[in-house]
Amino acid sequence: MDVTNRLFNRDLMNRIVSAEEAASWIKDGMTVAMSGFTQAGDAKVVPYALVERVKREKKPFKINVYTGASINSEIDGILAEASIVNLRLPYQSEKRMRDSINEGEIRYIDQHLSHTAEMIRQNALPQIDIAIVEAVAITEEGYIVPTTSVGNSHIFVEKAKAIIVELNEAQPTQLMGIHDLYNPEEQGRRRPILLTAVDQRIGASAFMIDPDKIKGIVLTNQRDVTSKIIQPDEDTAIMADHLVHFFCEEVKAGRLAKNLAPLQSGVGSVANAVFHGFLKSEFTDLEVYSEVLQDAVFDLIDAGKIRFASGCSITLSPAKADKVLGNFEKYRDKLLLRPQEISNHPEIVRRLGLIAMNTAIEVDIYGNVNSTHMFGSRIMNGIGGSGDFARNARLTIFVTKSTAKNGNVSCIVPFISHVDHTEHDVDVIVTEQGLADLRGLSPRERASVIINNCAHPQYRPQLLEYYQEAVKRGGQTPHVLEKALSWHVRYQREGTMLGKSL
Amino acid sequence: MDVTNRLFNRDLMNRIVSAEEAASWIKDGMTVAMSGFTQAGDAKVVPYALVERVKREKKPFKINVYTGASINSEIDGILAEASIVNLRLPYQSEKRMRDSINEGEIRYIDQHLSHTAEMIRQNALPQIDIAIVEAVAITEEGYIVPTTSVGNSHIFVEKAKAIIVELNEAQPTQLMGIHDLYNPEEQGRRRPILLTAVDQRIGASAFMIDPDKIKGIVLTNQRDVTSKIIQPDEDTAIMADHLVHFFCEEVKAGRLAKNLAPLQSGVGSVANAVFHGFLKSEFTDLEVYSEVLQDAVFDLIDAGKIRFASGCSITLSPAKADKVLGNFEKYRDKLLLRPQEISNHPEIVRRLGLIAMNTAIEVDIYGNVNSTHMFGSRIMNGIGGSGDFARNARLTIFVTKSTAKNGNVSCIVPFISHVDHTEHDVDVIVTEQGLADLRGLSPRERASVIINNCAHPQYRPQLLEYYQEAVKRGGQTPHVLEKALSWHVRYQREGTMLGKSL
Repeated sequence: MDVTNRLFNRDLMNRIVSAEEAASWIKDGMTVAMSGFTQAGDAKVVPYALVERVKREKKPFKINVYTGASINSEIDGILAEASIVNLRLPYQSEKRMRDSINEGEIRYIDQHLSHTAEMIRQNALPQIDIAIVEAVAITEEGYIVPTTSVGNSHIFVEKAKAIIVELNEAQPTQLMGIHDLYNPEEQGRRRPILLTAVDQRIGASAFMIDPDKIKGIVLTNQRDVTSKIIQPDEDTAIMADHLVHFFCEEVKAGRLAKNLAPLQSGVGSVANAVFHGFLKSEFTDLEVYSEVLQDAVFDLIDAGKIRFASGCSITLSPAKADKVLGNFEKYRDKLLLRPQEISNHPEIVRRLGLIAMNTAIEVDIYGNVNSTHMFGSRIMNGIGGSGDFARNARLTIFVTKSTAKNGNVSCIVPFISHVDHTEHDVDVIVTEQGLADLRGLSPRERASVIINNCAHPQYRPQLLEYYQEAVKRGGQTPHVLEKALSWHVRYQREGTMLGKSL
Repeated sequence: MDVTNRLFNRDLMNRIVSAEEAASWIKDGMTVAMSGFTQAGDAKVVPYALVERVKREKKPFKINVYTGASINSEIDGILAEASIVNLRLPYQSEKRMRDSINEGEIRYIDQHLSHTAEMIRQNALPQIDIAIVEAVAITEEGYIVPTTSVGNSHIFVEKAKAIIVELNEAQPTQLMGIHDLYNPEEQGRRRPILLTAVDQRIGASAFMIDPDKIKGIVLTNQRDVTSKIIQPDEDTAIMADHLVHFFCEEVKAGRLAKNLAPLQSGVGSVANAVFHGFLKSEFTDLEVYSEVLQDAVFDLIDAGKIRFASGCSITLSPAKADKVLGNFEKYRDKLLLRPQEISNHPEIVRRLGLIAMNTAIEVDIYGNVNSTHMFGSRIMNGIGGSGDFARNARLTIFVTKSTAKNGNVSCIVPFISHVDHTEHDVDVIVTEQGLADLRGLSPRERASVIINNCAHPQYRPQLLEYYQEAVKRGGQTPHVLEKALSWHVRYQREGTMLGKSL
């Protein structure tokens, strides 16, 4: 690699080391914080070298691993397989890591994504020994310019005792300048965050650290390894239509502006499909204030629908990455990447009045939402930023298909097996069946709207039967506790939630 | 009443009417918004006159009733008894109102207390026809000076078509000047709220409305009718000790400053007892940024422990009210009252880094908290501001006795029957048995700490038995779904949660 157009601080030249050497600095018991948010901008080679070394050494070895959010699946996978993770936080989305967590082999703290930096600042988590962050460049001052994500890297490099930089030639230098790196002070001594518009800059364009903290620089040349985005299917397309129709009606009613309000959308295929729904809508001048900028955001920029997008990562399918990163000048003035505590900050979320759209695993008849756990016990990924947005947004929307497992699971249930978002935070539920606008409704009214608008027809009679039995017992939120979780229990025993009587 | 020292705008003299006349303006189907937060500063005579009139007229009559939070119990009581309430929000704490809500006779929307003003601003709730607000004075400009609470009155008077002022001679004029009435603009066009210290003023000292909106002024002379504060008992005193000890250790560890961080404490006797715990502690220069300022806050000011207290209401027991309000000059420069959306604002809660202490009804072994519902269905009061604080605070603490109903109910259960706060938001649990510091712990570790430190010894074996059975099935948050709610079901059937085997 010709490092001269990426490593502008000549004094740091002699810090260039191999991945193996950098990995050798990581000792048993350390806390290692790595860049990466939704598989973008993550450390790509040092973790591999570390795993190789540990396998070779065959000594007891465990580390704590902090990241922004999910990282390259391969890396979470090999870390889990090698059994070298003691504590993992604040988010993951990889099968082997998930299995180890669910087996209790890896301690996992599933955090609101805006909370991690605060907890580190408060010294309420094990201190960071080494931060490994991917960079597109190191400036003359020795400052680090991140790549396709910011995540928690600002706090990682600030608090780590030592920093390893992975300088990645495969990340286009045009990424320089798209970061807005604001680092709040300690709570209690903190000033207002003066961000009042999605396209506003309030921070630096590089992590302004003491270059002496950079212990090593590893040269890499590898693209982000992202998941394939599943293209919208019939159901997700219908869900998007319901939402677009709802937004049109809100504009007509004068409750939303013509270009709505800044949009936040969760990670994954359903969220991507929802954004895709705007493509054929009449909305223009849309603004995005979200975590991850996925394929659909760039499609909407191309189509002239999105005016500006603020995120904390750019996560693209491989095909889309070629187009976007290969032609990045086109997008440079239409987006900004911020730390996740800023993209998800309650202060900003509330001030801007976001429309928050996130995915549910299951929803109960009163509008409580489970977005993390299968059948109460087994975690899928994590709560991510959904709680940061849901509590503080102007309008909180959760989307889910009405059924899963070939119709054997109803995603609308009497009582969810795990609660991540309470009815106080949930304004709208959308399934392919329809949309339930819960604003201004008491729980009993919510039940009727959710069952009728959102549940799959094959489950409606069962849901109504439960609800009616519950109402006979009374209450603000009527339940039949001995039957509340019986749908889940039945599925575990019989492979289906369907059944004539509870 | 000599109105000249309270009604400074002479043009409004001719708006003085009887309570009966004012009540006659309230028509069937209207939405009536009333001042009042935790039984302080509420409308005191027009609601009575209204109920009298409706009883006399014997015609169908229903209204929607919005308040700040709980009001004078008598008033919620007679409104419920008269069956004239269609919709009630965002909080109540009165037996007859609660019973009617649980019977489904009154629609009740239990809201985060910072959300109501936003939803009104967004036009997502029925529009306010008439606001009835208690005032200590009306200024020369015709602006309204509230009394012992601010609550939602700023948004009520802004959005109502007409305003009825209850000018209350029993509220001391010394209250003038203690209000800091900041009204955020619309979301999306909103500037940062420039509040960075608990004693900082950012707003006006009166509601700056168009005086023409004042349709009537009713003269009253009646103190706030508040609940008796139950004095700390042995258990709540022990809980306070646990907390004070914890805070001392946090200071020693360098995680909190010597005067801690601004304190928020919920409503009621347990919360009051927790504050009382500071009396004999070594802490000084404490700051409060809370909703309600109860007896203990004034005791702590008297004792030189609290430097400054910001709240949205002053709710005192009758005996304490005599002392404080009769000698208010002593406290005037040590407190401020703000709108509840500012006292509870996520922006401020996060910026100041509050220590939030609120009461739980029950807690599960993983640290999820129910603060509203008895046995899943029947609501007690409401979520109040606990969610505003819990999600966004620096340190979120929930307190509860370990048992209720003479030991027949364990307040630590395998699975709570209603979730208001998820484990992501809960840092510390305190019972009279001990304190569980959950920061940095994964759910399985949380279970062990909560069971061992917080559960009553008579329930520990049962809890461990459940937990161990659950762990055999695996998962990040292990559960045995068919037994998860069995403790509640057993209590409903047998009158106790105690039992050899599940």
